[in-house]
Amino acid sequence: HGRDQTSPFTEKYFPQTLDHFNFNSQGNRTFNQRYLITDRYWLKGHGPLFFYTGNEGDIWDFALNSGFITELAAQQGALVVFAEHRYYGKSLPFGLQSFNVPEVGLLTVEQALADYALLISALRGQLAATRCPVIVFGGSYGGMLSVYMRLRYPNMVAGALAASAPILSTAGLGDPSQFFRDVTDYERLAPRCKDAVRGAFHQLKELAENQDYRRIQEKLSLCKPPSSPEDIYQLNGLLRNAFTLMAMLDYPYSTHFMGNMPANPVKVACETMLRASGLLENLRDTAGIVYNSTGALGCFDLYSLYVQCADPTGCGLGSNSLAWDYQACTEINLCYDSNNETDMFPPMTFGETERNIYCSKRWAVLPRPRWLQTQFWGDALSAASNIIFSNGDLDPWANGGVRKSLSSSLIAVNIPGGAHHLDLRGSNDADPESVIKARKTEADLIAQWVKMERTRLRTPKQ
Amino acid sequence: HGRDQTSPFTEKYFPQTLDHFNFNSQGNRTFNQRYLITDRYWLKGHGPLFFYTGNEGDIWDFALNSGFITELAAQQGALVVFAEHRYYGKSLPFGLQSFNVPEVGLLTVEQALADYALLISALRGQLAATRCPVIVFGGSYGGMLSVYMRLRYPNMVAGALAASAPILSTAGLGDPSQFFRDVTDYERLAPRCKDAVRGAFHQLKELAENQDYRRIQEKLSLCKPPSSPEDIYQLNGLLRNAFTLMAMLDYPYSTHFMGNMPANPVKVACETMLRASGLLENLRDTAGIVYNSTGALGCFDLYSLYVQCADPTGCGLGSNSLAWDYQACTEINLCYDSNNETDMFPPMTFGETERNIYCSKRWAVLPRPRWLQTQFWGDALSAASNIIFSNGDLDPWANGGVRKSLSSSLIAVNIPGGAHHLDLRGSNDADPESVIKARKTEADLIAQWVKMERTRLRTPKQ
Repeated sequence: HGRDQTSPFTEKYFPQTLDHFNFNSQGNRTFNQRYLITDRYWLKGHGPLFFYTGNEGDIWDFALNSGFITELAAQQGALVVFAEHRYYGKSLPFGLQSFNVPEVGLLTVEQALADYALLISALRGQLAATRCPVIVFGGSYGGMLSVYMRLRYPNMVAGALAASAPILSTAGLGDPSQFFRDVTDYERLAPRCKDAVRGAFHQLKELAENQDYRRIQEKLSLCKPPSSPEDIYQLNGLLRNAFTLMAMLDYPYSTHFMGNMPANPVKVACETMLRASGLLENLRDTAGIVYNSTGALGCFDLYSLYVQCADPTGCGLGSNSLAWDYQACTEINLCYDSNNETDMFPPMTFGETERNIYCSKRWAVLPRPRWLQTQFWGDALSAASNIIFSNGDLDPWANGGVRKSLSSSLIAVNIPGGAHHLDLRGSNDADPESVIKARKTEADLIAQWVKMERTRLRTPKQ
Repeated sequence: HGRDQTSPFTEKYFPQTLDHFNFNSQGNRTFNQRYLITDRYWLKGHGPLFFYTGNEGDIWDFALNSGFITELAAQQGALVVFAEHRYYGKSLPFGLQSFNVPEVGLLTVEQALADYALLISALRGQLAATRCPVIVFGGSYGGMLSVYMRLRYPNMVAGALAASAPILSTAGLGDPSQFFRDVTDYERLAPRCKDAVRGAFHQLKELAENQDYRRIQEKLSLCKPPSSPEDIYQLNGLLRNAFTLMAMLDYPYSTHFMGNMPANPVKVACETMLRASGLLENLRDTAGIVYNSTGALGCFDLYSLYVQCADPTGCGLGSNSLAWDYQACTEINLCYDSNNETDMFPPMTFGETERNIYCSKRWAVLPRPRWLQTQFWGDALSAASNIIFSNGDLDPWANGGVRKSLSSSLIAVNIPGGAHHLDLRGSNDADPESVIKARKTEADLIAQWVKMERTRLRTPKQ
């Protein structure tokens, strides 16, 4: 595809250990882990390695939507690597069988971290970069992985920029109502916007209670009329997800990251919700911003546009969504509810019980809600250092992360007017001052860490 | 058995997760992990938890040979737990099938550390001890595990006393000739002692070259005459191992830890080697200090008294030796050679090639010599804190560990005249001043760590 024509990156594959934690499970099998690399900006053998800890998707999507990292590499003379997370993109250990039970069992955070550690070691060796400081970068779950890399391998990783990483809520340290309450922040544009959304969902509820499915189909341009409470639940999930995505991706310019988004989608949504036409028509058109950005769809198909999974904030579509569903069924806690009181959505509960039932049935697993907290310290992070936790206040994930600095080297960077890891994106004329300032702070801290680490790496061992 | 009559410990079992790293491998199976606990000295809800990270053996053996920990608990009001390592003692996840392939695959350092983390969390919860600081203790491989617990879980573990932990050599950072060179330290008592040992092995070699197997049998009181070079190799291994054990366990009083040892066994060995009778008779009687301490054996059986394995320093006997062999075949690097130049033993090589061949055949695994170094930082430990690395200069393991302090909180404690983790043993009238001083240093540091951690645990989160 065309993306590699303008991108500086070369696509490569690393023969990665399949199972780091069981010497007998797969013999000594490896799989091909994809990574992208560019030395265009690198001061060879001297400049740092900027390593993106890939998250739940095709690694090109992250590379092409994290321009800050290459811009910073150009400033600081860094080698840049974007590593793809196992079981995503083209890094499928068992090809199309990867999502069978038990093959899927090798998809864990622990395996992914060990992958990155081995890849970093191998690249530093191959490229004569053993004395080059390593900084890890990541957004969202990728930001969590960056934090974990710094906790786990501080000898190898000098510092981490964790952008919009919901490191507390996913460890089970949060309030189930937080996420959709913060999605409801649409009210910041106009209290009437939230009221309109709530009103539209209320109309939908009344029609559903009267089993007026035909009218629901017509008003919302569904391909088929809903025919059961399950269909209505699916419909509510699909609609709620549109608001979630627009809140997360509320960038000041149009983007093509997780689907196509106009500039300022929340503003567009509110304008749409407040049109003079009926509330349900407005709700349909608002959902269309997300699901029908090209206008090509004549109707909405309930089950192909949105897939329910163990992540109520959405798993996406395709094989990446299978992998994320599995992670949400095992280590990553994403039990968020909407309740129509602290948020504008229909009450939809996804608690421990629902999760256990779903995950046992779907993947033959039981989640371990305390595991991440045990392995990665929960909120007791004070023993760590050299981590930036950046968050934008538009982002519903922000309050699942670290919002206040924990020490002089565990720095919270807040970005007023910023959506989901806006700071990782490349510079844009529409950027608010806040993100320009945040990137400057991040660049300065990273330069400091690199300098300190260079000294450490050149000090002979005792 | 009698040991629990005088011991303060109660034996308990914890339902431990069988596979921490694969949610699909064993469903949600658990196994019963044994641990010993005493609250006899505990200032309830206030005093620290002293947690021994069990190593390669029955946990009672460690509890009964680590009296310093209970003595310190009495001084500092601590709760004491000795946790048994999975696949050792009675903590066999699959009973007698535990050492089959692939069942043995769940025996790894990583699984053991996660076991200890979960057990600590559970006990702190059950005993209302969440604000009680945790200090980990361990000797030898158990000391390595204590270091790893502090690296991995500094939020949970305030500090580690790692006694005689060969943390560098087992990570592959060492010289293959170091171990048996240091066993050859018998020469400190009399250069003639080393010469006598070397002379005895030389006589044995000549007899073997002449295939005078009958005379070898007679001189060394073997039950059967050797009949092949393999038997001679086995015999050399058995004899070398006697010197290894006496060097490790060269305590100033008699012990019953790894077999029965007289007080000062190296001195006894040298006296035996320098008797007026023939060198081979002396060698036989010296081996008898280890293999025939009661004098009950009429002859030595080559293959029942000593088992060759992936650890040339000895795997012991019984099912614990199987588990340790597997660990030496996977993560723990123990490729030590004797060469008859820097040591007094016959040349016996156990390098990467020999290890790979043996381990593939025995366990269907290939060792990963770099894995420990990647996961636990090798010699780049400066990012860690609050660890005591204690070593006695009589101990052949000492120079595989950290001998110089790495920072103000990574403290090397050297114990002149000390054998393998002498400092962990209870006080004895025969203790040298050095170990009394070392224990005092350790006690003071641990008290400091406990105090600091108590403050941290009582500081409200931001």
